[in-house]
Amino acid sequence: MLATRAYEMKLSEENLIERIRRRIPSAEGGALQMGIGDDAAVLRAPAGADWVVTCDPFLEDVHFLTGAHPPEVVGYKALARATSDLAAMGARPEVFLLSLAIPANRTGRWLDGMLSGMARAARTFGLRLAGGDTSQPSGRNPKIALNITVIGTARRGCVLRRSGAQAGDAIFVSGQLGAAQLGLELILRGLHRQARWKDLLAPQFYPAPALQLGRWLARRGVASAAMDISDGLSTDLHRLCQASGAGARIYAEKLPCVAVPGGLASLGLEALAMALHGGEDYGLLFTVPKRLAARIPRRVVGTRLTRVGEIIRERGVVLVGADGKRAPLQPRGWDHFAKI
Amino acid sequence: MLATRAYEMKLSEENLIERIRRRIPSAEGGALQMGIGDDAAVLRAPAGADWVVTCDPFLEDVHFLTGAHPPEVVGYKALARATSDLAAMGARPEVFLLSLAIPANRTGRWLDGMLSGMARAARTFGLRLAGGDTSQPSGRNPKIALNITVIGTARRGCVLRRSGAQAGDAIFVSGQLGAAQLGLELILRGLHRQARWKDLLAPQFYPAPALQLGRWLARRGVASAAMDISDGLSTDLHRLCQASGAGARIYAEKLPCVAVPGGLASLGLEALAMALHGGEDYGLLFTVPKRLAARIPRRVVGTRLTRVGEIIRERGVVLVGADGKRAPLQPRGWDHFAKI
Repeated sequence: MLATRAYEMKLSEENLIERIRRRIPSAEGGALQMGIGDDAAVLRAPAGADWVVTCDPFLEDVHFLTGAHPPEVVGYKALARATSDLAAMGARPEVFLLSLAIPANRTGRWLDGMLSGMARAARTFGLRLAGGDTSQPSGRNPKIALNITVIGTARRGCVLRRSGAQAGDAIFVSGQLGAAQLGLELILRGLHRQARWKDLLAPQFYPAPALQLGRWLARRGVASAAMDISDGLSTDLHRLCQASGAGARIYAEKLPCVAVPGGLASLGLEALAMALHGGEDYGLLFTVPKRLAARIPRRVVGTRLTRVGEIIRERGVVLVGADGKRAPLQPRGWDHFAKI
Repeated sequence: MLATRAYEMKLSEENLIERIRRRIPSAEGGALQMGIGDDAAVLRAPAGADWVVTCDPFLEDVHFLTGAHPPEVVGYKALARATSDLAAMGARPEVFLLSLAIPANRTGRWLDGMLSGMARAARTFGLRLAGGDTSQPSGRNPKIALNITVIGTARRGCVLRRSGAQAGDAIFVSGQLGAAQLGLELILRGLHRQARWKDLLAPQFYPAPALQLGRWLARRGVASAAMDISDGLSTDLHRLCQASGAGARIYAEKLPCVAVPGGLASLGLEALAMALHGGEDYGLLFTVPKRLAARIPRRVVGTRLTRVGEIIRERGVVLVGADGKRAPLQPRGWDHFAKI
């Protein structure tokens, strides 16, 4: 209501809805009984399923930089990031809601690009758009804000939790650590415009939620605790330990660190530091009782799994260096905003 | 990740989570199997229930004005507004997620006030906080943004829809029309600071989603179509007609218009215009087959119901004036942003 006084309309509601609807998979079917077009969406779970729900903001100049992240990347990554929380629970993605605050001057080509990236992510992860809302942010230099709610299903009582790790459990991570941070370092130095580093940007631009691994772990029931690594291993491992009332010891030499190409040596980037504290890799961090640890394969559906340490009774996280020296590992990942 | 470079942390994650959690009902129980503290929440529906899901943004200087809307009002209204979509579906509120973008300098007293208003709304509507996320908006003059996802349950196959109205059906509205707009007009003129108009602000500050009425209609199965009046009758009636493939005729004399006190006569506010085009009343607009219309009582659980017109075959909405003259009614409510 207030905004009608502050802004001139640049596009009609129907036009905008129609564009979003045409671009992003949103047909009713599966768990989606009633989709876009009413006051709310209606969902129906398969028998014996629980719902798993999470929401994630994706804000301009906080979670993405317009100069560095093309609109396709914004759409893809916003949805991938939210969906990673479902992977961490072992859930199967079903539907999502999009709340989009967008200045009128970004509703042309930028919006089209964003929707095309988001549509690709939705198809990749098996998500349908169930509804949402659009609005126009206020202020002189208004920013784009996406808020995404992702909803999935899990077999009743079969979700992964952060809180079950016990002393002696083996600690695993999936994929590589620090690869998304390496891409970010290139962006922050303006090197993302150089074609020869293009491949290094993919982990930063198009993260892959570990959906299949999450469901594999949930089905097998082997993980005592699990979460996704969104804010950096040092921070997320602290969270897992805190939720489980335990501590952890990890080994620097065992970490599947990103490889920094020789051509970037002059930047002084430390692979270990990026692996420990870099966020946005969206692999899974999980623990397995010691007696089952040997049964964990090296790869699950193409995703590499690495045993990096063990849960200990004493609180806190200890890093064992290549020289065998032990030092407390502080949470130095992205911890300034809360996942409640 | 990006934001760690741009901002100094003013509060720790744990601190902020703890404050939100302490203030707002969030205990596990009922439909909430697993709440705050993991990567996502887990929900379980009662047997034979569907889930009803909606999300709504509530943005500073768009949906609220910091100078006029106290923080308690922001928290209450943000949740009431989103919950009204559940009322419109005839659903029972269960849980909500809060995505909060808030500048560090608003995390003190402002946040406390907002949380206290939101907690009151949650208790009033029977909602538990199931999770969410917090972040810090960027820019020189960053704005507060709330995004709320509300989730409810409905008996399987018993939700209200916008799309079933047929020619001949009687049109009803609940409550008063234009009362929230009258409050807004006072705010826009700076009159909200005068104690004598305080009571007139309540409909603007603390809207009451028609939850009991919505469930009553869904249980009885008498409504052929229903939605909430969030953006003004003229706009929302057009939407209901469009979804139903029909038109409508309403009578100016029958509308339950807000009463404008004599002391405000000099402002030249027209009660009829506010009733037709003012938004944020959050009553229900619903249609009932003609043969059942006489069975609709004047009040349901304290909410006044008024028959204001009928559905017609011809597209468009016609307003019949007090003098009997007919004129097309254009959608002039809040239509600049899309509910998808």
